[in-house]
Amino acid sequence: MVILGIDPGYAIIGYGIIDTSKTDMVVDYGAITTPKEDSMPVRLEAIDASLKFLFEKYKIDVVAIEELFYFKNQKTVIQVAQARGVIVLACQKYCGTIYEYTPLQIKQALTGNGRAEKAQIQYMVKAILGLSAVPKPDDTADALAVAICHSQTSPILNNNRA
Amino acid sequence: MVILGIDPGYAIIGYGIIDTSKTDMVVDYGAITTPKEDSMPVRLEAIDASLKFLFEKYKIDVVAIEELFYFKNQKTVIQVAQARGVIVLACQKYCGTIYEYTPLQIKQALTGNGRAEKAQIQYMVKAILGLSAVPKPDDTADALAVAICHSQTSPILNNNRA
Repeated sequence: MVILGIDPGYAIIGYGIIDTSKTDMVVDYGAITTPKEDSMPVRLEAIDASLKFLFEKYKIDVVAIEELFYFKNQKTVIQVAQARGVIVLACQKYCGTIYEYTPLQIKQALTGNGRAEKAQIQYMVKAILGLSAVPKPDDTADALAVAICHSQTSPILNNNRA
Repeated sequence: MVILGIDPGYAIIGYGIIDTSKTDMVVDYGAITTPKEDSMPVRLEAIDASLKFLFEKYKIDVVAIEELFYFKNQKTVIQVAQARGVIVLACQKYCGTIYEYTPLQIKQALTGNGRAEKAQIQYMVKAILGLSAVPKPDDTADALAVAICHSQTSPILNNNRA
């Protein structure tokens, strides 16, 4: 199963692709970035185009994406949620199978502790995937984390289908 | 100039199209609705498809859309903002010219009072467009209001380009 994990955002969107049928699971990872000089409509269009490119390049079976939760900054949550809507639509159009995980579920799946620190998650991403270093930026490691979380969640017990 | 006004949402998206070159400005208005039984990815896909249909049916020069502001309910703001991202992307792809107006700017443009009540806005929409009744649902009247707001805002002083 080829899983695309996504850490949603509008300036930086982390992505991580793993293939659970392989011993060396890592297929690709990185970050889609949009310049802050561009208007929001142009940035949303760029996000959609970049995701379309990924779906055309790789045969992705399922998408795992982080849920948005409480934000202190109302302006930020609106902008991130707008981008997340565009990301979810792209995943729906180009793949059709989307699962959503809360930060707590992701931390729990990777470390057994829903309150794990970011560094612990990054350590586990590196260890599980056999990487020589923690992927940068953080959004990329977060995206790989949500992909791993999906791979470790029982298909039978999974209630996270979007 | 043909203006598409949009009141963003995920369950109900109001739209109103006016042609400022005509004495009888109203072209079309209504609401796109998505069933709550459907998953959010499916609802976002339906919103995108409905907007594409409108852009194919009418030659729209410019889109005017309401900005999202403070919400008490975090869950609602995330869902509405996700849909708004999809709406903005569709307008960018199928039209390319988008203006955003705050509720205050819309009220000010229609009534001269930024704190006007909803009923006053609806009355002005009906009066300005020469309609026999206030368009329903409210989201439709709100969409026509933002289209009228754009038509009444000086192109030279307009800083609302998205």
